[in-house]
Amino acid sequence: MPDIRHDPLSDRWVIIAEDRAKRPQDFTAVRSARTERPCPFCEGHERSTPEEVLAIRPEGSPPQGPGWSVRVVPNKYPVLQAADGDAPATGGQLFASRPATGIHEVIIESPRHVTRTTELTDDELREVILAYRHRLRAARRSKNIVYGLIFKNVGPRAGATIEHLHSQFVGLSLLPSQTQQEVRNAKAYYEAQRQCIFCRMIEEEFRSDVRVVARSNQFVAYCPYASFSPYETWITPREHCGAFDELSDQQATELAGMLRKLLRQMDHILDRPAYNYLLQSSPFDSCADGSYHWRVAVLPRITTLAGFEWATGCCINPIAPEEATRQLKFATFS
Amino acid sequence: MPDIRHDPLSDRWVIIAEDRAKRPQDFTAVRSARTERPCPFCEGHERSTPEEVLAIRPEGSPPQGPGWSVRVVPNKYPVLQAADGDAPATGGQLFASRPATGIHEVIIESPRHVTRTTELTDDELREVILAYRHRLRAARRSKNIVYGLIFKNVGPRAGATIEHLHSQFVGLSLLPSQTQQEVRNAKAYYEAQRQCIFCRMIEEEFRSDVRVVARSNQFVAYCPYASFSPYETWITPREHCGAFDELSDQQATELAGMLRKLLRQMDHILDRPAYNYLLQSSPFDSCADGSYHWRVAVLPRITTLAGFEWATGCCINPIAPEEATRQLKFATFS
Repeated sequence: MPDIRHDPLSDRWVIIAEDRAKRPQDFTAVRSARTERPCPFCEGHERSTPEEVLAIRPEGSPPQGPGWSVRVVPNKYPVLQAADGDAPATGGQLFASRPATGIHEVIIESPRHVTRTTELTDDELREVILAYRHRLRAARRSKNIVYGLIFKNVGPRAGATIEHLHSQFVGLSLLPSQTQQEVRNAKAYYEAQRQCIFCRMIEEEFRSDVRVVARSNQFVAYCPYASFSPYETWITPREHCGAFDELSDQQATELAGMLRKLLRQMDHILDRPAYNYLLQSSPFDSCADGSYHWRVAVLPRITTLAGFEWATGCCINPIAPEEATRQLKFATFS
Repeated sequence: MPDIRHDPLSDRWVIIAEDRAKRPQDFTAVRSARTERPCPFCEGHERSTPEEVLAIRPEGSPPQGPGWSVRVVPNKYPVLQAADGDAPATGGQLFASRPATGIHEVIIESPRHVTRTTELTDDELREVILAYRHRLRAARRSKNIVYGLIFKNVGPRAGATIEHLHSQFVGLSLLPSQTQQEVRNAKAYYEAQRQCIFCRMIEEEFRSDVRVVARSNQFVAYCPYASFSPYETWITPREHCGAFDELSDQQATELAGMLRKLLRQMDHILDRPAYNYLLQSSPFDSCADGSYHWRVAVLPRITTLAGFEWATGCCINPIAPEEATRQLKFATFS
């Protein structure tokens, strides 16, 4: 089983997952995201993956076979593995480690071999979003899982190794340090101001209106003031909501429309960039106080982290979010 | 002038540096590191760069002309700019910003068009290391500079845009959050244990001897227990020393030999990977208590940060540092 090690200097954890790659020669070049045929995620190749834990398929259609529109399977090369109990850390202060337990799933977003979200219809993306909600709800009921994260890697520069459109779900038995920090800061703000820091930011974004890319009845898309990467855009509910899995069916429709439109705008102005998106929802056991607010953060990966960023944690962003907003807002495409 | 913006959720800062790239089409592909000829860093093209602030050159050789072996110039596209005073943050808690003031220099490591440290001789690398020491010493005497960092990007995957071998020096008027965190943890350890955490780690590394790659009289090279990236290796003095600029001439010789040998081992087993190295020394105004210990961290860039790492700050490392150590230690080359 992979293990999670703690760095006592940065307080960050690293997952040592040797099964992900045995030999150094796997890494000597940027790997192509093009998988060899047959693609294990295409309809008709259901036996190439572990057995599905969820599939959106017509009533009566048999599991592990064709006919599905979205399919969720355990990751074949998981960085986290299921375990009965929660193992404590060992190794003391300097060499703390624990087994990397948790859930690691792949959400296959289409039976067709599509490679970008923009190739889905709004309805298809809506089904993907409903699958996200389903997996988060299931993880919330799991023993020892304290946090659920959905993320997506598109293109080799964003860390994808299989090009067939998919997202990943991880359910963690440990709150990652970066999430801990965010939760801590959001709580401190809430305690001082009696208001959710995200709600307050959204108010200010509407007031200044220089970083708002799009708005709908229930959602807003904006480039955050301290965007770590160029064209970073957050989609978040306008009304306070901490847990993504409280999303209504109607909200799923609206979110799909806004997310797909944003990705089309990015494809247009950045010529189909590699990107990640992250669905960051409140941890399961905390934030009932109303201090956290879920978001989808979309990050085109068009710059490279260099030595400065590694050493300091401080990013360099060559496109001001106000400029990114202007470009995204006025992107026109047929 | 670029500005530094604070993210109130992560407590991290981001530098918005629009001069670094005006148009989005600059980013639509991975840029090649190959610069168009003539290379501005080659001997004979001294007028292509800002005027040198340091050059190692024979006595009597005129500045801004040929004859040098190492040359330090201000960065033509700085992310930090000189300023008289230290401007305070504005914008309140949610939108805090300050001018990105500081020093940003380029250390050109050879008059010849070499692209990798391993193409330098030990003596040439020693001169580069002495230039690092010089710039750190100079920055320590500068007003408003609290921290100096040397870093190097080799290869486009490591963020290099010019291939002629060079390093960069930044002098910051603000301690980056990641460095702050490290200093805080090192101080807490020191206060509890009355020992430098790095010295203690080195003791433990020698005791277990499963992550020690090399040792010399005064230095040790080891893969840290919680290595964030595969083959990450730290070179650090065996005896306690916080500030790199206290390095003796004799230590510079020994460090050059060990660093170059390590990079040759990495070139050999990873087939000339892109890499960064970072020279992390104690902040100027703190750590006089003996809690900090300088190091050179070498990071081959053979994996890609994907959505999981962006969202959590938790890295996935597919090569255990114990395995990386074995491979590095037993790398043989002519």
